[in-house]
Amino acid sequence: MSQTPDSAVRTYIEQHRAAFLDDLAEWLRIPSVSAQPDHAPDVRRSADWLAAKLKENGFPTTEIWPTPGAPAVFAEWPSDDPEAPMVLVYGHHDVQPAAREDGWDSEPFEPVVREGRLYARGAADDKGQVFFHTLGVRAHLAATGRTTPAVNLKLLIEGEEESGSPHFRALVEEHADRLAADTVIVSDTSMWDEDTPSVCTGMRGLAECEIRLHGPDQDIHSGAFGGAVPNPATAAARLVAALHDEDARVTIPGFYDGIVELTDRERALFAELPFDEEEWLRTAKSYATHGEAGHTTLERVWARPTAEVNGIGGGYQGPGSKTIIPSSAMVKLSFRLVAGQDPHHIEKAVRAWAAEQVPAGIRQEITFAPATRPCLTPLDHPALQSVVRAMGRAFDKPVRFTRVGGSGPAADLQDVLGAPVLFLGISVPSDGWHAPNEKVELALLLKGVETTAHLFGDLAANWRHEP
Amino acid sequence: MSQTPDSAVRTYIEQHRAAFLDDLAEWLRIPSVSAQPDHAPDVRRSADWLAAKLKENGFPTTEIWPTPGAPAVFAEWPSDDPEAPMVLVYGHHDVQPAAREDGWDSEPFEPVVREGRLYARGAADDKGQVFFHTLGVRAHLAATGRTTPAVNLKLLIEGEEESGSPHFRALVEEHADRLAADTVIVSDTSMWDEDTPSVCTGMRGLAECEIRLHGPDQDIHSGAFGGAVPNPATAAARLVAALHDEDARVTIPGFYDGIVELTDRERALFAELPFDEEEWLRTAKSYATHGEAGHTTLERVWARPTAEVNGIGGGYQGPGSKTIIPSSAMVKLSFRLVAGQDPHHIEKAVRAWAAEQVPAGIRQEITFAPATRPCLTPLDHPALQSVVRAMGRAFDKPVRFTRVGGSGPAADLQDVLGAPVLFLGISVPSDGWHAPNEKVELALLLKGVETTAHLFGDLAANWRHEP
Repeated sequence: MSQTPDSAVRTYIEQHRAAFLDDLAEWLRIPSVSAQPDHAPDVRRSADWLAAKLKENGFPTTEIWPTPGAPAVFAEWPSDDPEAPMVLVYGHHDVQPAAREDGWDSEPFEPVVREGRLYARGAADDKGQVFFHTLGVRAHLAATGRTTPAVNLKLLIEGEEESGSPHFRALVEEHADRLAADTVIVSDTSMWDEDTPSVCTGMRGLAECEIRLHGPDQDIHSGAFGGAVPNPATAAARLVAALHDEDARVTIPGFYDGIVELTDRERALFAELPFDEEEWLRTAKSYATHGEAGHTTLERVWARPTAEVNGIGGGYQGPGSKTIIPSSAMVKLSFRLVAGQDPHHIEKAVRAWAAEQVPAGIRQEITFAPATRPCLTPLDHPALQSVVRAMGRAFDKPVRFTRVGGSGPAADLQDVLGAPVLFLGISVPSDGWHAPNEKVELALLLKGVETTAHLFGDLAANWRHEP
Repeated sequence: MSQTPDSAVRTYIEQHRAAFLDDLAEWLRIPSVSAQPDHAPDVRRSADWLAAKLKENGFPTTEIWPTPGAPAVFAEWPSDDPEAPMVLVYGHHDVQPAAREDGWDSEPFEPVVREGRLYARGAADDKGQVFFHTLGVRAHLAATGRTTPAVNLKLLIEGEEESGSPHFRALVEEHADRLAADTVIVSDTSMWDEDTPSVCTGMRGLAECEIRLHGPDQDIHSGAFGGAVPNPATAAARLVAALHDEDARVTIPGFYDGIVELTDRERALFAELPFDEEEWLRTAKSYATHGEAGHTTLERVWARPTAEVNGIGGGYQGPGSKTIIPSSAMVKLSFRLVAGQDPHHIEKAVRAWAAEQVPAGIRQEITFAPATRPCLTPLDHPALQSVVRAMGRAFDKPVRFTRVGGSGPAADLQDVLGAPVLFLGISVPSDGWHAPNEKVELALLLKGVETTAHLFGDLAANWRHEP
C-alpha cells in the first residue's frame, strides 16, 4: 500500500483550499442550534446541506438518519480493498447558541476571516473539524492516484451533541451493522496548543446521581426540637464530607476496582507537556489546586476518577435566617470514571456506601442518570500509531499525547461498536468553544486536512480489517 | 401581708368570668396580625383597645409606646407598700396570620366557644394569657380587700412578637427606668399538658450565622477541572459535617465553656415528667431521636446547646443534572445556647473554628445576626417559689418544672433590666399556636386568673424589693 507523497498532498490542498473554505463558510451560515426549538429547521437544513456536500465530494452513499430529535448524517465510501480497515469518523453538525450581543465582534453566523482565523459559531466546534475530512479524503485520492479510499471510510455526524446527544446511543444501536468499524476517529477535540500537535487517547466516563434525604415531614422549629432529632441537611453534608479521605481519595468501597493505572511511560509523557499550572488555574478560574494525593494536576483531570458534588440544597436559602430543621435535603453527585471502571459497578458501590451514611430517622432516595463509559486507547494501538505518524507528517513536529477530563457520546460508539476510539482534533484551547468569537485557526484547519490525507493510507498500510 | 383566701378568689372570678370572656372576645375580634402590613391599623387598634381596657380594670397608668413598627402597651399599678417587689408582666398583643381557608372550622377572628374551648387566633398566643392578668389582679384586690396590688405591677405588652420583635430590645433600653423590675413574668408559654401544671424556668439563647464559601469565579466544568480544584460545595459540606463528633457533641473549641450544667435534682425533675417519646416524635414529625450522647431528649431540647444547619445551598439544584463545580456555596447555622454561654464568646469561637475548616483556594465570609441570650432562673429563686405555690393553689396539683428549647425577647428583658425571668403560662401543646383552630381551654384560662390572684400576694409576702 503506497504512502501518500507529502508534496502532492500539499499541492492538492493548496489548489482546493479556497473552494473548501467557501463551502465551510456556507455551512457555518446555517444556524444549526440544536438547543433552541425555533432553530430545528436550521438543524435539518444543516444535515441536508452536509449530505449533499459529501455526495458532491465523492461519497457514494449519503443518508439522513432521523431521530426523535435532530437528524444525523451518515456517509460511506468503501475501499476497493476488501481487507482495508473500517474507519468511522464521528463529529456533529449542530452548534451552541450564539447572538451578537453576547459579546461577538461580528455576526456569529456570518463567517469572517481576520488575521488567519475564521470566526463563526461552529468554526471549531465542530463543523470545521468535520469538514476537514472531506478535503482530506480527496487529497488522499489525488495524491495516491486511488479512486476509492485506502480505508473503508464512514462518517456519522450527529445533530444533537450540543443538546446532550439524547438519542445518539439508540441511533448507534439501531444502525450498529452499518456503523461497524475497526476504529472510531472522533474529530471534536483540541490539541494541546497552537505549537504542540497532540493526539488525545481517552476521555473519562460519567456516572451521575441525585440523593434526597428526608427527615421531618415538614420543616420543624429548631428551638423546640433542635438537638434531639436528625437533621437531613446535616446528613447530606456528612454524606458529601465522607466522600473523600484526607488524601482526597474517594472512600467508597470498590470505587477504584479494576482501574487501568497510568504506566510510567504515560506519566512521563504527561510530564513532558508544556504545562503551566498558574495558567491552568486561571483557565479554571480557581485559586488553588486540590486533588488526589500522589498525582499531578494533569493526571487528576485526565486519568483519575472523581467524586464531585455539583449541587447541594436543603432548608432555608433566602436572605436572613429561619430557625428550622429542614424537612429534606438533596445532593447531586457526579463521578468521572477512568478506563477499567464499570458504571454499573460504580452505581452499586455508591448505593451500598450511601445507604450506610444515613442516620436512623432519615430516609434516603437515590436516582442515577444513564452513565457514560470511559474510553482509552493504548499508546501502542496500531491505529493510534497511524494517527501520530499522519499528524507528525502534517505538522512536522513531535506529536504529544493528551486525554480529556470530560465525557462524551464517543463512549457510546466504543461501547456499541466494540471499536477503540481515537481523538483527532486540530482545535486549540483559545478557539472559544461555546463562547463569543469562536474561531478556528486556518493554518491548523488545513493541517487537519493534511493529517487525514496521510492517515487513511497509513492506517491501511499498517493495519488490516479484522472481521 | 395577707394571703388571698382561695374561696374568695374563686367566688370573685365566678362572678366576673362572663364579662371577662366578653372583653377577651372583643379583643380577639381585632385581627392584629403584625406580619401583614395591611393589618397595621388593626395592630394599632389592638393596642388602643388594650390600653383602654387596662385603665377600665383599674390600672392608673396606661400608655401606648410607639416603635418604628407596631406599638407596645405599657401599664403600671403601683403598690402602696414601698418595699413591695416590682413585677413586670410581659406578653404580646399581635397575632399570627390566619384565614378561614387555612383549615379553620370557624372564622379565626370570630371567637366561638365549643366544648369548653374558646377558638380564635390569639386565644392562647397570646391575648388570652395577657388578659388573665387583668381579672387576676382584680380578684387579688377583692379577696384581700386591698386598693392597690401587693406588688408594684407593670405590664409591657408588645406588638411585634410574631414578627420577630425587631424593635423590642431598643424599646426596653429606651424605657429601662420605667420598666425596672425585680422579676419578669412572661405569660407567653405553655404548661406541660392539660393535667400537669408546670412552671418554665428558662429558655435557650440563639446565635445565628451565614457562612459563604467562594471557589472558582464562576461555575466551571466538572469534566475539564473536576478532581483538581477545591469544590466550595464540598467545603461547605465538610464544614457542616465537622460541627459534631460521633457522640453528636459540638466540636467547636470553647463551645461548652462556662455552661451551667444540669444538677442531679433538675435531671430528676425532668425525668419525673410524663414524657412519651413516641408522642413527642409525632409532634416533631420525625422518625428517630438523635442528639448529644449521655442526655435524654428533654435534656437535649431544654438544657443542652446545639449547632443546627438551617439551610445549605450551592451549585445546581434544578431538575436533572449539570456537570459543574459550583462557584460558591452557603450554609446557615444556628446555635441554641444555654445558661452560662456568652453569645460573643460563641461568635468568636465559631469564627476561629470555621476559619480552620476552609481548604486552600476557598474564600470564606461569615456574617452573624444579633444574638439572643439564654435565660434560666434557679429552682430555689424566691419568685419562682411563689409562682409554684400560686399555681399549686389554683390547680390543686403538684407543679412540675419545664424549660423551653426556643429563644425569645424575654432574654432582652433579663439582659437590659437585670431581672430573672419566670414563665407563667396556662396554654397547652394542643392549643395550636400558629395553626388553624387555635384555642384556649376556658378552665385553664380561669386557672391562670386564679394563679395570678394568688401570686401577687405570695410574692409580696415572701420577697421584698431590693433597691
